Amino acid sequence: MQITSPHPTNPTDDLDLLDRYWRAANFLSVGQIYLLDNPLLREPLEPEHIKPRLLGHWGTTPGLNFIYAHLNRAIQAQDLDVIYVCGPGHGGPGMVANTYLEGSYSEIYPDITRDADGLRKLFRQFSFPGGIPSHAAPETPGSIHEGGELGYALVHAYGAAFDNPGLIVACVVGDGEAETGPLAASWHSNKFLNPAHDGAVLPILHLNGYKIANPTLLGRMSDAELKCLFEGYGYEPLFVEGSEPAAMHRQMADALDVALASIRSIQQNARQPDATVERPRWPMIVLRSPKGWTGPKEVDGLKVEGFWRAHQVPIANPRGKPEHLALLEAWMKSYQPETLFDAQGRLVPELQALAPKGARRMGANPHANGGLLKRELKLPDYRGFAVEVTSPGKTIAEATRELGKFLREVITLNADNRNFRIMGPDETASNRLDAVFDVTERVWMEGIEPYDVHLAHDGRVMEVLSEHLCQGWLEGYLLTGRHGLFSCYEAFIHIVDSMFNQHAKWLKVSRELPWRRPIASLNYLLTSHVWRQDHNGFSHQDPGFVDLVANKKADIVRIYFPPDANTLLWIADHCLRTYNRINVIVAGKQPAPQWLSMKDAATHCDAGIGIWSWAGTEPADEEPDVVMACAGDVPTLETLAAVDLLRKDLPDLKIRVVNVVDLMTLQPRSEHPHGLSDRDFDSLFTADKPVIFAYHGYPYLIHRLTYSRTNHAGMHVRGFIEEGTTTTPFDMVVLNELDRFHLAIEAIERVPGLSVSAAHVKQKFRDALIEHARYIRAHGEDMPEIRDWVWPNSSGGTTPAQAGD
Amino acid sequence: MQITSPHPTNPTDDLDLLDRYWRAANFLSVGQIYLLDNPLLREPLEPEHIKPRLLGHWGTTPGLNFIYAHLNRAIQAQDLDVIYVCGPGHGGPGMVANTYLEGSYSEIYPDITRDADGLRKLFRQFSFPGGIPSHAAPETPGSIHEGGELGYALVHAYGAAFDNPGLIVACVVGDGEAETGPLAASWHSNKFLNPAHDGAVLPILHLNGYKIANPTLLGRMSDAELKCLFEGYGYEPLFVEGSEPAAMHRQMADALDVALASIRSIQQNARQPDATVERPRWPMIVLRSPKGWTGPKEVDGLKVEGFWRAHQVPIANPRGKPEHLALLEAWMKSYQPETLFDAQGRLVPELQALAPKGARRMGANPHANGGLLKRELKLPDYRGFAVEVTSPGKTIAEATRELGKFLREVITLNADNRNFRIMGPDETASNRLDAVFDVTERVWMEGIEPYDVHLAHDGRVMEVLSEHLCQGWLEGYLLTGRHGLFSCYEAFIHIVDSMFNQHAKWLKVSRELPWRRPIASLNYLLTSHVWRQDHNGFSHQDPGFVDLVANKKADIVRIYFPPDANTLLWIADHCLRTYNRINVIVAGKQPAPQWLSMKDAATHCDAGIGIWSWAGTEPADEEPDVVMACAGDVPTLETLAAVDLLRKDLPDLKIRVVNVVDLMTLQPRSEHPHGLSDRDFDSLFTADKPVIFAYHGYPYLIHRLTYSRTNHAGMHVRGFIEEGTTTTPFDMVVLNELDRFHLAIEAIERVPGLSVSAAHVKQKFRDALIEHARYIRAHGEDMPEIRDWVWPNSSGGTTPAQAGD
Repeated sequence: MQITSPHPTNPTDDLDLLDRYWRAANFLSVGQIYLLDNPLLREPLEPEHIKPRLLGHWGTTPGLNFIYAHLNRAIQAQDLDVIYVCGPGHGGPGMVANTYLEGSYSEIYPDITRDADGLRKLFRQFSFPGGIPSHAAPETPGSIHEGGELGYALVHAYGAAFDNPGLIVACVVGDGEAETGPLAASWHSNKFLNPAHDGAVLPILHLNGYKIANPTLLGRMSDAELKCLFEGYGYEPLFVEGSEPAAMHRQMADALDVALASIRSIQQNARQPDATVERPRWPMIVLRSPKGWTGPKEVDGLKVEGFWRAHQVPIANPRGKPEHLALLEAWMKSYQPETLFDAQGRLVPELQALAPKGARRMGANPHANGGLLKRELKLPDYRGFAVEVTSPGKTIAEATRELGKFLREVITLNADNRNFRIMGPDETASNRLDAVFDVTERVWMEGIEPYDVHLAHDGRVMEVLSEHLCQGWLEGYLLTGRHGLFSCYEAFIHIVDSMFNQHAKWLKVSRELPWRRPIASLNYLLTSHVWRQDHNGFSHQDPGFVDLVANKKADIVRIYFPPDANTLLWIADHCLRTYNRINVIVAGKQPAPQWLSMKDAATHCDAGIGIWSWAGTEPADEEPDVVMACAGDVPTLETLAAVDLLRKDLPDLKIRVVNVVDLMTLQPRSEHPHGLSDRDFDSLFTADKPVIFAYHGYPYLIHRLTYSRTNHAGMHVRGFIEEGTTTTPFDMVVLNELDRFHLAIEAIERVPGLSVSAAHVKQKFRDALIEHARYIRAHGEDMPEIRDWVWPNSSGGTTPAQAGD
Repeated sequence: MQITSPHPTNPTDDLDLLDRYWRAANFLSVGQIYLLDNPLLREPLEPEHIKPRLLGHWGTTPGLNFIYAHLNRAIQAQDLDVIYVCGPGHGGPGMVANTYLEGSYSEIYPDITRDADGLRKLFRQFSFPGGIPSHAAPETPGSIHEGGELGYALVHAYGAAFDNPGLIVACVVGDGEAETGPLAASWHSNKFLNPAHDGAVLPILHLNGYKIANPTLLGRMSDAELKCLFEGYGYEPLFVEGSEPAAMHRQMADALDVALASIRSIQQNARQPDATVERPRWPMIVLRSPKGWTGPKEVDGLKVEGFWRAHQVPIANPRGKPEHLALLEAWMKSYQPETLFDAQGRLVPELQALAPKGARRMGANPHANGGLLKRELKLPDYRGFAVEVTSPGKTIAEATRELGKFLREVITLNADNRNFRIMGPDETASNRLDAVFDVTERVWMEGIEPYDVHLAHDGRVMEVLSEHLCQGWLEGYLLTGRHGLFSCYEAFIHIVDSMFNQHAKWLKVSRELPWRRPIASLNYLLTSHVWRQDHNGFSHQDPGFVDLVANKKADIVRIYFPPDANTLLWIADHCLRTYNRINVIVAGKQPAPQWLSMKDAATHCDAGIGIWSWAGTEPADEEPDVVMACAGDVPTLETLAAVDLLRKDLPDLKIRVVNVVDLMTLQPRSEHPHGLSDRDFDSLFTADKPVIFAYHGYPYLIHRLTYSRTNHAGMHVRGFIEEGTTTTPFDMVVLNELDRFHLAIEAIERVPGLSVSAAHVKQKFRDALIEHARYIRAHGEDMPEIRDWVWPNSSGGTTPAQAGD
């Protein structure tokens, strides 16, 4: 694109001032990496002024500072509301330097004053024990993005822009990050951004040509190929290229003005009454500048500026080598700090004047501290969506379908606030949440055909076949103060394991920072789960995400296995009310017996675990012979069916049934706030009776959660043991020995003395397994008596009667 | 691109025959989804001929069949060596149908004969208990790719093509899959493919417009935008678009001929003597065809063909609804099976003649059963790379740097075979494996500048800032019979958790299929690990990958924590010799004390676990008071330092030191073939003494592995508890309470009676922790006495003396 600036006069002296501001930021960045003391170089630089360990990344930083300074100029000139997503998060010194220069840093950290003493502390704390991390992090004002693990800058930026019509999210994408898969897909987010209702994302692809030790793919591509690539993605790229600062300032100012004018024009057009909105061609900037720009050209005879050697600490040993020390001093002095800071060490007034004011400062923008802007999510009374359960097992319902009705109402209640979205990889209907489409649509900015279903330019549901995008959009949306739910096939949530890790880390640190206000929890609904992927087969069968989740800090994570629809409703309602957490709800979508009335569900979920006395056979005043425990809807069904078998064939066996909804109750209270006390645990699981535990996922997790409990040696856990294929639903549990027969057989074997006397019963169950295997191979479906089994106290499965719908 | 076919005459009757072949494949695909019996519809279709549960995906299948038929034609015409990577793996019926038609299926599964009876079995077994999965899977001849979890087709294709100069990998990318991040990045793999030495990848982007319940992003993009996008990625797209079969056959045949001619021309040019190879513009095909092509146009009044309703089973209930049954019968008969199969149910000879012969059939291509082609990796004697260790702790070395020297020799020995590659996300040098650059380079097909370092068009090292690409390339490379190593920062290997899962599943099933020959193991080197990410901070600190790994089938996975260089060498040598496994090696790269001579290392690693009697203080004939166990290099260091503290201050305490290299030894033998017997376990860990276990990762894993051991209640595990930031190395272990002082204090507290008498010692250790905290906050580095601590029996750290180098 030929750049024609709509603001044709940027007086040169403005850009001269801007250049000085940039130099100040560069000076502070170098200072953070290197200096313990002598921050303004008012004395000759000595080895003892240098940190003993040099930890930080210079290479990307001058480019980040350059962009920051230019965004400041635009914000000032046009009174813009902008946040800065820094993809190359390891350029932390730049983000800290800029927020310090604009004053937002010292407001949050008053100890880091805007004078020479504050500068000294600012430098010293960076990458220093007890100080601040080397990366942009929760500690960094204005940041919603760590950038430690690369790939998510652009998807976070889009998440922040949705439903924020006044906001511009400037997003710097490094050329290293641009090689990652999630980032490569993120460019397509423009197909989901509505210029009428959403804000704008301004991607700035920062090509400095190198990563740690290699050139970058995009850095080595020609402008012609890059232009083609990004036009193909649907953008209008503006190129800013060079290394001579004055010319680069002019180019960048012009490009930014063109881009912002283009954004304004797109939004104005889309926001006309009766506008017919089509996906616009949004602008983006491709900035080619040298890696380690303005740093040393060579060190020890090797090329540094404009090469990967500038990536981290360009001058390795100024504390030990006098020539390195001299080089560092010359480098820092090249920024002319005496022209940037006054006698007290304060930024000179003409440079201070360049920074935006108040909440317009990118380090003080409330969108980047989303809890400040968060409105409570309005929730309907979940009891109004109860499935009527007059006796356990009588009603048949699809748990997620009932949840869909609740979510429909959540969408309606919050429609005006536009602060709730549901993300999913093409699975909202497949996961049976489709009641939401009664009141909203899927967002889609591409063409819509007359026969398309539930697609619109505006909608609360976002579907794309990328778990990375779903997760990243939602993170960006939550971090800027909104609410949401991510519904996903259970197996494929592993695709975002690492994104989950990073979000958990962000929350862990954020919670320790009083100035960061709480944000809404990240809520996962994992459905189409392992036990009902009988049709898609082994690749779709993996319940291990919760194992990863359980590794995280206890106050961050929750894991729920509601066994039926009413418990799912209670848990979902609860999760949507929480803050600063990651809630994982695992629930099935298939028709299944319902166990608890809403009243009983509320009591059960509130405790998180409990004895289902209606299912057991223990007398009131005696200990049971065996505890049959279960967590998860299918394990609960199989456990109850096993109890039914045992009750019929061994009527004297004293069975207790324990159901676990909140997995964290199993941990000791010292490990997790939801953990049961040992006394309560023992009262549920006994001190020494066999416990046959049917668990939804890999059995090891239960052992790990309960290893220190009194009766741990008595816990016999069955779960998914990595056996599966395309088969029948019941065969899936048989393959993993989690079915009613295996459970009943183990109960018989574990109860002392019973094994021998009940040998014939065991044999009967074994025969039933063989018969089942023969039957399904002959008929291709489960035996009717298994498929249609109902809990004996109920009078047979019926369709759900809705209490509130 | 204007298509000009270099084979201008494809006689129409050829394409008519080809169309019939396609119809045969479509007929067989529908039959697999629906029919239990009456495979050739020679009787009227009855409800009892229909499967009770209809599990399969029709939508993508006709397009896959169309491509297969056209590839057959090209293979026949030009005698090509082609494998077919089927991205939409849920189009399994198509892959099965085609391998059946060409005869490769019946060769592998002789029970599925090429006649009416075989057809009946073929149909019946699909998605049927005891039969075959609904997706392309290990069971599918000619497949190296499951396609259940989407995103990896193209990266697998490139992995297969590297170092296979005669091979063409046809790779079908569905437009659903094309939305994923890994796939979006995979297009850039062309920057790593050398036309002189590698084979070709022919991507066929199959746009049928829809995923499960939505249009696709790429399907709705205009041809102009698509052309731009793929030209930007560096390809030359050829468009084939329409729905009328005859015209589509003509277009596709022409496009394929053009593409193959282009590939031939690129390769011929590159393979000239003295050719200067530049990255060529490889051809690709964009095929737009209707979803569910040739299926029912409408069902129950709703659009099906050309819409997402065709995704799975287009006619829902032919067993229950007569009008559905009639519709299905009419659909199947529309393929005119009576013209395709003879009286015995065999494909008619003129159609049989269209399929390639022998190993040219894509279902019989040996590259897709890589174990057939695999050559043993030549390995040097690892003992030649030993670090000299005359007494424990005396030598200082960097473990991965020593491994790099071994790998250098591996590369040299296998240079002629061109069957070993090292993958890494820009980290080979950072991970200190850079000795390999003595003998090879990083592959790079983009421009190379004079100042670039170790870049070349040919090389054994592949670096890209995408863990997805590294993993996917390596999988494709291994699955086609070669060898490799993936070196990665420990924290970011979580990015490929889900790819690991899928590869483990592939191996698990492959091992159960005798015709699938063993392939080389997937070897991970995880370094730059949690304890030495003190400079990058919290986002880079995550040791949880092994928790995921430990969930998988025991005979597939191995996890190793070599504590020093010689043990790392032994383990790496061992892993590179194994087959059909996933080996995870976690090892540090920082200078660290060396504990074992190569002889001792071999003994120790061979056992996988052992008592380090030189470090302990237990008398020969007495039980120890406490066992100090460790797994991982940093935990080993801290454990020995703790033992040193205890030996000095509590000389009477009887300490046993146990080091664990092979984590799987901790499991019961019933769970893992490497597991210790209970007797051996007890002899190491005692039946009842306190065990202070310093573990590299999340402590829960040790509990989970050992929960059933006699002394489990005595196991006190310390590990990473999710505390970290940018700080000093020793502070990292202190923050997680894994340091020598915490270990020593816990030992004192756990040994009965000692806690009171040794109160002053505990206090001394606590004071040391406080002093450490003060010191690092003042100085920014660890106290010299901690940093420079050496095992007391050694005479101080020295640089390594190389035995064999």
